[in-house]
Amino acid sequence: MIGTDIEHLIKLLSRLPGFGPRSARRAVLHLLKNRESLMLPLSQGLGKAAEVIRECAICRNLDTTGPCSICANLRRDAALLCVVEDISDLWAIEKTGSFRGYYHVLGGTLSALDGISPDDISIPHLLERARNPAVKEVIIALNATIDGQTTAHYLADCLQPSGVKITQLAHGVPIGGQIDYMDDGTLSTALKSRKAV
Amino acid sequence: MIGTDIEHLIKLLSRLPGFGPRSARRAVLHLLKNRESLMLPLSQGLGKAAEVIRECAICRNLDTTGPCSICANLRRDAALLCVVEDISDLWAIEKTGSFRGYYHVLGGTLSALDGISPDDISIPHLLERARNPAVKEVIIALNATIDGQTTAHYLADCLQPSGVKITQLAHGVPIGGQIDYMDDGTLSTALKSRKAV
Repeated sequence: MIGTDIEHLIKLLSRLPGFGPRSARRAVLHLLKNRESLMLPLSQGLGKAAEVIRECAICRNLDTTGPCSICANLRRDAALLCVVEDISDLWAIEKTGSFRGYYHVLGGTLSALDGISPDDISIPHLLERARNPAVKEVIIALNATIDGQTTAHYLADCLQPSGVKITQLAHGVPIGGQIDYMDDGTLSTALKSRKAV
Repeated sequence: MIGTDIEHLIKLLSRLPGFGPRSARRAVLHLLKNRESLMLPLSQGLGKAAEVIRECAICRNLDTTGPCSICANLRRDAALLCVVEDISDLWAIEKTGSFRGYYHVLGGTLSALDGISPDDISIPHLLERARNPAVKEVIIALNATIDGQTTAHYLADCLQPSGVKITQLAHGVPIGGQIDYMDDGTLSTALKSRKAV
């Protein structure tokens, strides 16, 4: 006999990634106990963001401005173009503060199983951007998964004729990683790509 | 360089139980990708619930009506009063469908460490409700933790003089539980409370 308004909220929240029915119930209770400080600001924040945030026509990042604040920033390095699968990857790289070029969000990876072809993700637009003579290097920053690496190979093949430099993220043991916990694939890659000290 | 509106949302969401900064980022992206079907309904649902849901003056359950739909239901069994720590416990018991009495939400447990005394949680109100001659049995359904059981003992002592029957949830091996995974406390309790087949 939970009220229908509460049930409705629980159902909506349980559709968020990482939430199930039980954790959504806990979250709703937490929200109801913190109305002024959390529930109302969240309601307003969601409403406002849904209204003002749009996709950047250049890189497909999400922002309140169009083009997004990264593409609109002329002080970044136009020679570097970093290709990522999803906006979350862009955010992760941007958070490191160690990349000063521009981004291109594919919005997915090629997948024969799911029937995703180059035209379904933003590959034609990427090739067009890479033809800009200002772009000297395309950094392929796709996940080290089968789909990610298939897409990376395809992209490298497509970009080759344009003469632009093509690089991809280094693979190896992550910082803080323990060797006896690493999988065979990571360890052999790290061995093969070993560097002089 | 994530937009401030997005950053604000991530911060709010990461204050939900079970969410950290990373999962809140994922959730915000998921919301932005599902504006019409999830983000706007969630915004409206939160706003509406924050406005209409209030605490029941009798049992401290949350509902859109006052008294709540459980306390207002005259077809429930007034002889049974079930004491729980939190509304989430009330929801969990109510979901089983096997209890037809009324509830009393304490809103916490006694805790010498945190300085929580009987007057800080809804104990005086519980004793008042238990004095109602219609109440024949008080079921103490508190967590099987130290604080929960301390509170249960205290409640039993307070309720004794009123002559009402006092019971508490059975402790033992949970349904589906495997004996070799149980802790010593559960196993000894289950042994001590063994029942004739």
